[in-house]
Amino acid sequence: MATSNENANRELARLVPVASNGLLHRREFLNRALSFATAATTGLVVARAVPAEALTDPKWSLVNGAPIPPYQTPSKYAAKVVRTLANPNNLPKVSQSRTPHHLMEGTLTPNGLHFTIVHAGIPDIDPDQHRFVIHGLVKRPLEWRVEDLMRYPLVSRFAFIECGGNSAPLFSPTPIQADVQALHGLVSCAEWTGVRLSTLLEETGIDPRAKWFIAEGADAPHLERSVPLWKAHADALIALYQNGEPLMPGNGFPMRLVLPGFEGNMQIKFLRRIKLLAEPGMSYYEAQVYTEPLPTGKAYQFFFLSEVKSFITFPSYGFKLPAPGLYQISGLAYSGLGKIKTVKISADGGKSWATAALDGVPRDKAFTRFRLPWHWNGGPAILQSKAIDEKGNEQPTRAKFVAERGELATALSVMAFPNHHFNAVMSWAIDSRGEITNVYA
Amino acid sequence: MATSNENANRELARLVPVASNGLLHRREFLNRALSFATAATTGLVVARAVPAEALTDPKWSLVNGAPIPPYQTPSKYAAKVVRTLANPNNLPKVSQSRTPHHLMEGTLTPNGLHFTIVHAGIPDIDPDQHRFVIHGLVKRPLEWRVEDLMRYPLVSRFAFIECGGNSAPLFSPTPIQADVQALHGLVSCAEWTGVRLSTLLEETGIDPRAKWFIAEGADAPHLERSVPLWKAHADALIALYQNGEPLMPGNGFPMRLVLPGFEGNMQIKFLRRIKLLAEPGMSYYEAQVYTEPLPTGKAYQFFFLSEVKSFITFPSYGFKLPAPGLYQISGLAYSGLGKIKTVKISADGGKSWATAALDGVPRDKAFTRFRLPWHWNGGPAILQSKAIDEKGNEQPTRAKFVAERGELATALSVMAFPNHHFNAVMSWAIDSRGEITNVYA
Repeated sequence: MATSNENANRELARLVPVASNGLLHRREFLNRALSFATAATTGLVVARAVPAEALTDPKWSLVNGAPIPPYQTPSKYAAKVVRTLANPNNLPKVSQSRTPHHLMEGTLTPNGLHFTIVHAGIPDIDPDQHRFVIHGLVKRPLEWRVEDLMRYPLVSRFAFIECGGNSAPLFSPTPIQADVQALHGLVSCAEWTGVRLSTLLEETGIDPRAKWFIAEGADAPHLERSVPLWKAHADALIALYQNGEPLMPGNGFPMRLVLPGFEGNMQIKFLRRIKLLAEPGMSYYEAQVYTEPLPTGKAYQFFFLSEVKSFITFPSYGFKLPAPGLYQISGLAYSGLGKIKTVKISADGGKSWATAALDGVPRDKAFTRFRLPWHWNGGPAILQSKAIDEKGNEQPTRAKFVAERGELATALSVMAFPNHHFNAVMSWAIDSRGEITNVYA
Repeated sequence: MATSNENANRELARLVPVASNGLLHRREFLNRALSFATAATTGLVVARAVPAEALTDPKWSLVNGAPIPPYQTPSKYAAKVVRTLANPNNLPKVSQSRTPHHLMEGTLTPNGLHFTIVHAGIPDIDPDQHRFVIHGLVKRPLEWRVEDLMRYPLVSRFAFIECGGNSAPLFSPTPIQADVQALHGLVSCAEWTGVRLSTLLEETGIDPRAKWFIAEGADAPHLERSVPLWKAHADALIALYQNGEPLMPGNGFPMRLVLPGFEGNMQIKFLRRIKLLAEPGMSYYEAQVYTEPLPTGKAYQFFFLSEVKSFITFPSYGFKLPAPGLYQISGLAYSGLGKIKTVKISADGGKSWATAALDGVPRDKAFTRFRLPWHWNGGPAILQSKAIDEKGNEQPTRAKFVAERGELATALSVMAFPNHHFNAVMSWAIDSRGEITNVYA
């Protein structure tokens, strides 16, 4: 290897810093390759000279391999890349499963790993017997089978779905040490294909008194939520497919309501009926659970939106940076109000900011992957990301957010969160050993 | 129900025909809903009046459901939505598995259903022991572990991958009756995330004599293919993630070469080394298998591209239209040369054409879903789709294609195809019973 102190220093000198503490210009991604091996500080080499044994055949290349299964599942060596379960014994209570974003990349969530919350397990629905009804303040109540809906014009769109309780551990007055999956694993993004609800409402006709609809699932709790009728005209979808295949059992098979940008609990799975109403139905989840208590003693009700948000998936809690050198900061951004326009990254706790590279063309109300090259000099750093959407909405600082929305009196576990819709800037501190903690900065 | 002959006739009259035999304007999708219930011919009602039992609780809503698994897999009721296997007993020969496009929708292939071909089974590779080497005509041969590559700038992109032998049954002199999965199931589309090969070549440096590289897999056949070096600079990727999670075992875990738009066999899975060469390596698959015999007695060699192509997934062989009325024609289009610009649909065997709606923003060298509403009057119809890419390339008719490229002397099975890269227009005939066959029209 030609690596030497001189080479390393020369390489470092040509990198373009754009914010303090080692943040490099995003165009390092695009216009020229970073020479990672030689740009790393002396002693750190990412790539290696080829050892003598490199070209001998590995043992797995000397035997016949395994048969192809009808449905592919991950390698046994990727066994950690699974959802964590909050209720693995399926006790009669809510069950959450969280997406392992810290072990993933790209802009969508594969169906095996999409987060799922169910309140009484996953129902065993025979799609041939399932019926979907629209009734209430309509001119003609109608009923459809799955195969009927397939006759209608289908549309496909990417949309993230986020539980209102995602990231709620950040309401704790002291930072809870947990990984991205535990803190932010209740959001996922897929391509949903189905029939626009507005198309079906053309069939039923709408009584002019109708201003809301209530949607109900065919699971045991008969989960139901009220939705303003404008959302039906805007972009509500009766989804039948998830990333190209029929919906997963935990994501609403055989059909679910998709309300892009609204909280996950409203996007009724196992959808069996929609009833048009003059006023909201005041169901349990909207009258009691998904209200937002405020420091004033009042509460927000009908707070549906997942507002602009981002979090860094690498580096993050649970990883350890092995040595100073070049790394890639990577994370996810999304907004319930539109496309992501900009993501800014700080390595000094918000004092200076660099603009991250966004992968591809940001999509409306869907995940955008952001990345930025970073030279970690081995000193302390505080990494933050701040997303701005196309409407100009920007993530608030945590201090500003909790001043307005409140914070818990005492630290609770990752699982307990009496408040919702946390979307403030989050901070990962790197110490001189390369260890990473959740901090409030 | 208010449906009546008068209503039905009125609805039909307001639909906009754009080509003969019932093709309707694509904007019917976008600007207003088709009223399917009343627009269907008299006697056919897609939606139904709500029967008395509709609002009684289905049996699965009366019991606690199943626990959430760590990794979601499809409903048992979706058991047909799997890949078909050409070598289920894993005999020592090539194994194909085909994507069930006729049972899918949207623009991407979920990881469970991505087609896989392996020539000696799926190797059992420990990613911690796997090494990737670039050597040959480089300045510094280098070696990387999986965790090393994660330090480099990652990029994500959608790309279809198509076996050179996909659709080869259409070379048969008489039309083979088989479904979309059997005929066209050797193409899939995913979001791939990885490191640009060009980034790694910046590290190794390139000897100016290098004009090709040969890539080799770590599976038992040590599958290897030669690729012109320009492709490395254009868009070749060392992919580590597929639709957000680590690559599937059958799709190259822990890393594969992705060469957007090139035939699948070249996109080496289980990638263990790339060697830069002055000339192609003349491996078995490029010197013998993936050459294209021509009617002239000569053959194309190094024919890498998947050219512009489309096929209709619904209606298609295996389905039966239950009655005259409104249907949605749906299918997939893609081009190895760029984005899809237009897809045209004919219902009269190519005499008249309508422009299909394309879903979302077409992506470079990736699947585009096309759809068009169709009123089937109950008479015979021949459905065709014809894709045109942004470079102006257009699918040829089958007659023109086989005149240039040849056709088999006798009909073979779906599995046997001595020729490749079939991309001509394909035809589904609908008879008066609603049954569907593969025809040459």
